[in-house]
Amino acid sequence: MLRNRVRSSPTVVAGGLDASSLAARFRRVRATTETLCRPLATDDYSIQSMPDASPAKWHLAHTTWFFEEFVLQHSLAGYEFFDPAYRYLFNSYYEAVGPRHARAERGMLSRPTIEQIWAYRAYVDEEMQSLLDSDALLPEMHAVVTLGLHHEQQHQELLLTDIKHLFSRNPLRPAYAAAAAPASRSPAPLAFVEFDGGLVEAGYIGGGFCFDNEQPRHRVFLEPFRIANRLTTNGEYLEFIRAGGYDRPDVWLSDGWAWVQREQCRRPLYWSDSLDEEFTLAGPRPLDPHAPVCHLSFYEADAFARWAGARLPTEFEWEHVAAQAPLRGCFLEAGTWHPVAAAEQEEGSRNPAPVRQLFGDVWEWTASAYAPYPGFRPLSGALGEYNGKFMVNQLVLRGGSCATPQSHIRVTYRNFFYPTARWQFSGLRLAADVR
Amino acid sequence: MLRNRVRSSPTVVAGGLDASSLAARFRRVRATTETLCRPLATDDYSIQSMPDASPAKWHLAHTTWFFEEFVLQHSLAGYEFFDPAYRYLFNSYYEAVGPRHARAERGMLSRPTIEQIWAYRAYVDEEMQSLLDSDALLPEMHAVVTLGLHHEQQHQELLLTDIKHLFSRNPLRPAYAAAAAPASRSPAPLAFVEFDGGLVEAGYIGGGFCFDNEQPRHRVFLEPFRIANRLTTNGEYLEFIRAGGYDRPDVWLSDGWAWVQREQCRRPLYWSDSLDEEFTLAGPRPLDPHAPVCHLSFYEADAFARWAGARLPTEFEWEHVAAQAPLRGCFLEAGTWHPVAAAEQEEGSRNPAPVRQLFGDVWEWTASAYAPYPGFRPLSGALGEYNGKFMVNQLVLRGGSCATPQSHIRVTYRNFFYPTARWQFSGLRLAADVR
Amino acid sequence: MLRNRVRSSPTVVAGGLDASSLAARFRRVRATTETLCRPLATDDYSIQSMPDASPAKWHLAHTTWFFEEFVLQHSLAGYEFFDPAYRYLFNSYYEAVGPRHARAERGMLSRPTIEQIWAYRAYVDEEMQSLLDSDALLPEMHAVVTLGLHHEQQHQELLLTDIKHLFSRNPLRPAYAAAAAPASRSPAPLAFVEFDGGLVEAGYIGGGFCFDNEQPRHRVFLEPFRIANRLTTNGEYLEFIRAGGYDRPDVWLSDGWAWVQREQCRRPLYWSDSLDEEFTLAGPRPLDPHAPVCHLSFYEADAFARWAGARLPTEFEWEHVAAQAPLRGCFLEAGTWHPVAAAEQEEGSRNPAPVRQLFGDVWEWTASAYAPYPGFRPLSGALGEYNGKFMVNQLVLRGGSCATPQSHIRVTYRNFFYPTARWQFSGLRLAADVR
Amino acid sequence: MLRNRVRSSPTVVAGGLDASSLAARFRRVRATTETLCRPLATDDYSIQSMPDASPAKWHLAHTTWFFEEFVLQHSLAGYEFFDPAYRYLFNSYYEAVGPRHARAERGMLSRPTIEQIWAYRAYVDEEMQSLLDSDALLPEMHAVVTLGLHHEQQHQELLLTDIKHLFSRNPLRPAYAAAAAPASRSPAPLAFVEFDGGLVEAGYIGGGFCFDNEQPRHRVFLEPFRIANRLTTNGEYLEFIRAGGYDRPDVWLSDGWAWVQREQCRRPLYWSDSLDEEFTLAGPRPLDPHAPVCHLSFYEADAFARWAGARLPTEFEWEHVAAQAPLRGCFLEAGTWHPVAAAEQEEGSRNPAPVRQLFGDVWEWTASAYAPYPGFRPLSGALGEYNGKFMVNQLVLRGGSCATPQSHIRVTYRNFFYPTARWQFSGLRLAADVR
Repeated sequence: MLRNRVRSSPTVVAGGLDASSLAARFRRVRATTETLCRPLATDDYSIQSMPDASPAKWHLAHTTWFFEEFVLQHSLAGYEFFDPAYRYLFNSYYEAVGPRHARAERGMLSRPTIEQIWAYRAYVDEEMQSLLDSDALLPEMHAVVTLGLHHEQQHQELLLTDIKHLFSRNPLRPAYAAAAAPASRSPAPLAFVEFDGGLVEAGYIGGGFCFDNEQPRHRVFLEPFRIANRLTTNGEYLEFIRAGGYDRPDVWLSDGWAWVQREQCRRPLYWSDSLDEEFTLAGPRPLDPHAPVCHLSFYEADAFARWAGARLPTEFEWEHVAAQAPLRGCFLEAGTWHPVAAAEQEEGSRNPAPVRQLFGDVWEWTASAYAPYPGFRPLSGALGEYNGKFMVNQLVLRGGSCATPQSHIRVTYRNFFYPTARWQFSGLRLAADVR
Repeated sequence: MLRNRVRSSPTVVAGGLDASSLAARFRRVRATTETLCRPLATDDYSIQSMPDASPAKWHLAHTTWFFEEFVLQHSLAGYEFFDPAYRYLFNSYYEAVGPRHARAERGMLSRPTIEQIWAYRAYVDEEMQSLLDSDALLPEMHAVVTLGLHHEQQHQELLLTDIKHLFSRNPLRPAYAAAAAPASRSPAPLAFVEFDGGLVEAGYIGGGFCFDNEQPRHRVFLEPFRIANRLTTNGEYLEFIRAGGYDRPDVWLSDGWAWVQREQCRRPLYWSDSLDEEFTLAGPRPLDPHAPVCHLSFYEADAFARWAGARLPTEFEWEHVAAQAPLRGCFLEAGTWHPVAAAEQEEGSRNPAPVRQLFGDVWEWTASAYAPYPGFRPLSGALGEYNGKFMVNQLVLRGGSCATPQSHIRVTYRNFFYPTARWQFSGLRLAADVR
Repeated sequence: MLRNRVRSSPTVVAGGLDASSLAARFRRVRATTETLCRPLATDDYSIQSMPDASPAKWHLAHTTWFFEEFVLQHSLAGYEFFDPAYRYLFNSYYEAVGPRHARAERGMLSRPTIEQIWAYRAYVDEEMQSLLDSDALLPEMHAVVTLGLHHEQQHQELLLTDIKHLFSRNPLRPAYAAAAAPASRSPAPLAFVEFDGGLVEAGYIGGGFCFDNEQPRHRVFLEPFRIANRLTTNGEYLEFIRAGGYDRPDVWLSDGWAWVQREQCRRPLYWSDSLDEEFTLAGPRPLDPHAPVCHLSFYEADAFARWAGARLPTEFEWEHVAAQAPLRGCFLEAGTWHPVAAAEQEEGSRNPAPVRQLFGDVWEWTASAYAPYPGFRPLSGALGEYNGKFMVNQLVLRGGSCATPQSHIRVTYRNFFYPTARWQFSGLRLAADVR
Repeated sequence: MLRNRVRSSPTVVAGGLDASSLAARFRRVRATTETLCRPLATDDYSIQSMPDASPAKWHLAHTTWFFEEFVLQHSLAGYEFFDPAYRYLFNSYYEAVGPRHARAERGMLSRPTIEQIWAYRAYVDEEMQSLLDSDALLPEMHAVVTLGLHHEQQHQELLLTDIKHLFSRNPLRPAYAAAAAPASRSPAPLAFVEFDGGLVEAGYIGGGFCFDNEQPRHRVFLEPFRIANRLTTNGEYLEFIRAGGYDRPDVWLSDGWAWVQREQCRRPLYWSDSLDEEFTLAGPRPLDPHAPVCHLSFYEADAFARWAGARLPTEFEWEHVAAQAPLRGCFLEAGTWHPVAAAEQEEGSRNPAPVRQLFGDVWEWTASAYAPYPGFRPLSGALGEYNGKFMVNQLVLRGGSCATPQSHIRVTYRNFFYPTARWQFSGLRLAADVR
C-alpha cells in the first residue's frame, strides 16, 4: 500500500551519491538502530538524564522524522504524515522547518508511547522502501537519503552514550548488555613519531558522502610536529591524578580550572571514587590500565597533555597523519562498546603504520576550535543548519569511537563538542612541537 | 510461604486504632492504588515532571517501602527484604532511617522496571496479609499499619496530581482517563455566614486515627467572623483576571507579587491562554464558570480575596465552621477527578448546613502558617519526621479535594504546601471580619 | 527661605500623636543618623554587599525621601522637590507611589555622590524644620512625621548591620569604630520561669505611636508555658556546635537542614572558623562565652532549641512575659554595638523581674509566623504597604537589639525577617511546654 | 630615600627591550592613568558593576601591584611591601603568585580607601623611579617593566570601559567627561578590496615589545579574500535591526541565537530602546548613523555579517591587510572616547591605503578563535599566565579602539574576549570569499 504519491517539484540538495545500493543501505542502517534497542526495557525509553542527552525514544523518532520531513513530503505527492504533531515533537533544531518541542523538555514525553514510535518507524520505513524500490526517487533526493542514514548513524552512537549516562545515574548501576571484558594487554610503549608538515591539504574530496563541514578541501601550512604512536591510557591518566593533576592550576586552561572547581571534578566521568573501577555499558568493571582513557572533557585532555609536557594535536595535524593510516579500529560493530588496549586491537593486523588507534576506540580531542573551512558553504535550505550554525565555542574531535558505526567514519570527519562535554567516548592522543 | 518470622522486640509508636478490619482495609487501600494505575501506559511510570512531583512508579514503590521499613522488619524475625537496594531508593525523607536517593533524582530510575515494582508490591502484600491474618501483629504495629494506609492514600492523591502535571507538559495533551464533564449548573449565590467565635477548641480528639499534627486538641480564641457559603468559582476568578488582578501589586503580598513577576504568571496553572479551556485529567475541557477554581497558589488565593475586599479564613475559623457540617463532598471515589459546581453536588443531599463544599472538590488555602499546636509531640522514632519537620514556610489547607479518598479526610485534617504550590487541587473560600 | 508654601488639601493618615515636641524629636533623630555616619569614609557609602543590604548612602537618602514624599509634598503648596529623579531612586518598595530603582541595583549609584546626599538632607531638614516650627503642619501629618522618624530609626539599625556586613566581607576586617570590649562576666545560671497562660491580650493599645501591625489589641489563649530567664549565650551555642549540632538532621526543620547543606553552614554568621573569634563593629574580637549568641538564622535558633530539649517561645508568650518587665536593656545608645553578658547589664538595675534581657542585646526569634492580627487594618494609601504586604514567609522577632534606639522599641513591637536572615543582631531565648 | 636595596639574584624573564627611555616612559604611562581619573568622584572608585568589570580603585591598585610583585621585590634587597595584604587583594589571576581575592568580590573593598590607593601608587612610583634612575635595574627586568607598562595601558582602556558600564546602569546617566560630539560626516561608500592571499606570515618579529601570544611569527595559507574598505556603521546596523535581524534565527549561530533569546537582546549594548540615542562617556548622545557601530557581541557582529551576505575576516586576513596600512587612527589620545565616522578621521591624512579605519575606533571582531600560534611558548614563571591560559572559548579582536593608547597597539596585537562580551568598544568590518 503506497499511501502517498510521487511528487514532481524537486528540492535541490548539495552532494553527490552513488544510488545503486541505497535501498539496501537504508534497510541495514534502520535495522541496526533497532538491534541496538533490544537490550532496553520499555521503562528505559522515555527518560532524559540531562539536557545534553535525549531519551532513546526520541532518537528513534527523530531519525524517522528526518525522512518524513526532508524526503517523503518532498518526494510523494500528497504525502500523509503519520501524525502531524510529530513534526513539532521530533524536530531537533531546524529553525527553518518551524517551531519545535524544547530540547530540555524531551524527557516529558511519556506519550507517544514506544509502541507508537515503533509503529511510526514501520510506517515511514514502508514508505521509504516503496520509494527507494521504485524509480521515483528524485536524483537530488539520493543525497538527502544518504545524509539521513548518516544522521541515523550519529544517533546510534548518541543512543548508546545517552543510555550509558542514564544508567550511570541509577544507584542500581544496570548494564545495557553483557559484554566480556577484553583481556588486558600491555600496549606498545609510548613513542612520538615526527612529521615534517609543510603545505598540506585537508578536507574531503571525492565522490562519496561527506558532511558539508568537511569541505572544501583546502591548503593548510603545518610546522613540523610529533605525534604519539597510540592513545593515552587509563594507567597514564592515573599517574596524572596521583601526581595531583586536579589540584594544580598551572596545567589547566583558566576556564578549565574554573570548571574543575565548579564541578568539583576529580576524575574521568565514569570512574569510581576509588579509581579502580569504571562504569561501562556492561556495568561496573575493574579499570584496565592499558585501555585508552575515555569520557574526558577537553579541559581534562588538555591539562593532561600540559602535565605530560606535550599538547593536543590540531585537527590538521591529525588528519595529515591519519590520511596515511588504514581505516581500521574498534567500532560499534565490535560489540565491546568500550575502547580496548592497543596491543590487542593490533594483533594480527599487520598494520605497517607506526601510529596506531587513529580510528575507533575514542574520539580524540584536538586543539582546534570548530570553525568553517575557507570557502565553506552550508547545504541550502533547512539542512544548512545541520553543521554550520554550531561553529563557535566547540572543539573538533577526530577518528570515531567504539560506538561509531564503521561505515560512518572518514579520515576527514569532524565531530565537535563543547569543552565541558564528557559523556561521549572522548579521549586523547599527545602531540608536541619539534624544536 | 511465609519467608519471614514474627519478631519479638517491639517498637513503640503513638496512636490508637481499632484493629478489627485492618486486613480488609489493607486490601482495599492497596487495591485502590492499583486501580488508579490502570489507565497508565508503561511509558508513564518513570518520569518526574518537576522536583515537587514523583514518578508514578516511585509512588507505588515508596508506599510499599513504608510497610517493609516500619512494619515488616520490626514484626517478622529475620525478615528478608525484597531488594535491600530499595531501602535506599524508596526512602522519601526519613533521615533517621538512613541515606536515600535524592528527591530530584527520582526520575532517573528507569530501573527497577514497573514489572519489578509490581512484583515488589506483590511480595510485600503477601507478607503483610500473612501478618495481618495471623495473631502475630504486635499491638503497637496496628497504629503503624493504619498510618501506612493513610500514607498510601496521600500518595493516591499525589499520583493523580503528578500524572496530571506530567500530561500537562506534553504538547499532545493526553487524558489520564475519559470522564464525562458534569453538566454545569449555577451555584448558589455567594453569601457570607456569620459566626460568633469566642473560645473554641481545635484539633483531633477521639479514638480513631489522626496525624500527629492534628493534636493536641486545644483552645483558640476567635473574634467574630464571616465565611462564604461556598467555594470561589472559575467565573469569579475570571472577573479578577479581567479586572487586571495580575497587574495590580496592591492586592498581592510582596512575595506574591515577586512570584507573579518572576513566573510571568497570568492565570491558574492549567488554564489556556485564551482563558476558555482548562487541562483536566480527562484532557482539555471548556472552562466551566460555575465550577470551583482550582490549581491556585496561596498567593493567587490571597490576592483574589483582597481584590474581593475579603480575606482567607484561618484554619481555626474553617475548622470551627466545618465541625458543624456533614463530611460529604466530591472525593476521589466520585471519579470526576475534578471539582464540580456547588449546585450539582448538593442536589438531593438535603444538606441543612448553610456553608457548603467544605469537604472535597478543592483543598482550601487558609491564612494560617503551618505550625505546631501548643504541646505538639511528634511520633517517636523515624515516624516523628512525618509531619513535624515541615512546620515552617508552608500554609495550611483544609477539607480535601476531588482526588482525596473519602475515608482519608477528617475535619481536623491539616494539609500543607508552600505558597507557590499550584499542582494540587487547591482553591479557596472567602472570609471576612465582622466590624 | 521657605521655598515651598503650605498646602491646603490634606491627606488623611491613620494614627494619633502628641504634637508638642515633634520638632525637637525630628532634630534629634535626624542628628543621630548623622552621628552614626561619622566613622565612615566616603568610600564606604556606595557599596551594596548583598541584595538584602543597602548602601549607607541609600539609607540616608531613602529616609529623607520619606519626608519629601509623604509629608512635604502634601503639606507645602507647590513644594519643589530637591531633585525629581530622587523620587524614583530612593523609593524602597511603595508600589502606590510609583516605579522605583530595583532593590538589587542600589549599589550601582555612585552618583548622586554622598556630598549631594548631604545637601539633599540639609534641604529637606530645612523645609521640615520650617514646617514643624510653623503652625502649618496639618493635624493628620503629625502621625506621618512620627512614622517617618520611627522609619528613620529602623534605618539607623539597618545602617549599622549593613556596614557590619560590608566590612565582614573585606579581608582587611576593618572596624566601624573602636569600642572597648565589655568585661566578660558569668551570666545568671539558666533557669526556666513558669507562666500560667490563659486568655491574655496582645497588641498595642494607648495613645502613643505604634506600627499598624501591632494592632488591634486582641485576645489570645495561652497554654501554661515556661521561658528562660535570660538569652542563650555563645558558650551554650558552642556546646551545640561541639555536640555536632550542624551534622544532626534530627534537630533541624527540613527547610533548615536543606539550608545548612546548601550554604555549608557550620557556625553563626560572624564567627571565625576556629570558633574563638567573632567579627564585630569594633573589628574581630575574642568570642565571649558569656555574651548572648547572635547573628543566627531562625533555623539555627530553632535547631539549638530542639537540641536543648526546648523550643522557641511564640510571640504571644514573649509579649505576655515582657509586659511585666521594665523596658531596659543594651540599646544603640550604649555604644557597645554588640550584645553584652547578662550579669553586666543587670548590674545596679535592681530589676525585680526574674526574666532578664527581654529588651535590647539581640532580637529574639519567636516560633510565630508573621501574620496579621485578627481585624488588622493597614494604614490607608501608600503607607499601607509599610508592613502588611510582608505577612507571609517571615517569622516574628521581639525585643530590640544593641543597634535599636531605645525610644524606638515597645513591648508590642513586631520585627520580622525570613528564616534564613542572619545579618541582623538576632539571637534566642528558650521556652518549653509545661507537662 | 631608598627604603629597599638592590637585590642580587635575578629572575629570568623572556623578551628584549631597548632600555634607554624606560624611566621616562614609566612616568608618562603612570601619569596618564592618573589623568584619566580626574573626572571621577570618590564615590565612583569602589563599585563593581558586573563580574567582568572592576572598580576604578582596583585598576589603580592592581597595576601598581604588578610592579611590586614582579619588579620591586626581585630588584631591591629586603624590599618592604607597602602593605602585605595588598599582595592578596590586588592579584588578579596569577595562581603561581599565590591565593587572591575573588574577582567577583572586588566591589566589596570600600577599604583600602582611594586615598590609601593613591598613597600606594606614590610609594611604588618613588621606588620604581629610584630603581629606574639608578644603574641597578637588572637587565632581565627591563622586559618586565615594559610589560608592566603595557599592562597598565590595557587597564587604562578597561578603566574607561568599566566606568562607562557603571554609569550606564545609573538612571541619572552621568557623563564621565564632556566631549564635543564630532560633526557627523558621511563615510566613504562601502566597498570590498580584494587580496590574493597565498602563503603569508603572521605574528610579531623585531626588536620591540610584543606579548607572548603574538609569537612566533609563522606561515599561514590564505585563500583569496575580499575585505571591506571601512568599519560597519551605526546606520548599516540600524538597517539590520529594522530588517528584523534580531528575530531571524537563520542569520545567527546557534549559541548566538540562544544568547539573544536568553538576554532578550534587541540592539547594541548602549543604544536606547528608541534606537536614536546611545550612551557614551560624554553621556547620552543622538546616534550618529555614520559612526562605526560599537559595543557589539561577537554573535551580533557575526549575525550582521551573515545578514549582509558576508562574513567576518579571520585574524590572519586582517593582519595581512593591516600590515600594509599606516598605524593611525582614533585612539585614547584623541579624547573623543568614542569611535568617529571614517570620513572625518581620514581628513588630511592622505592615506593611500584603500582599506581604512584598521586601527583605533573599535576593536574588530574576527572569525578566529583565540588559540596558540604553532610553537607558542608562554613566558616563564607566573607571567606565563598572562595570556596563554585564556586560549579557549574566546575570539580574537584586532586593531585597538578609541580607548586604546596609541603607543600600546601593533599590527600583530591580539585582543580576545568571550563571544558574549559587549562592554568593550567592539565593532566589525565585513569580509567575503572570492568565488
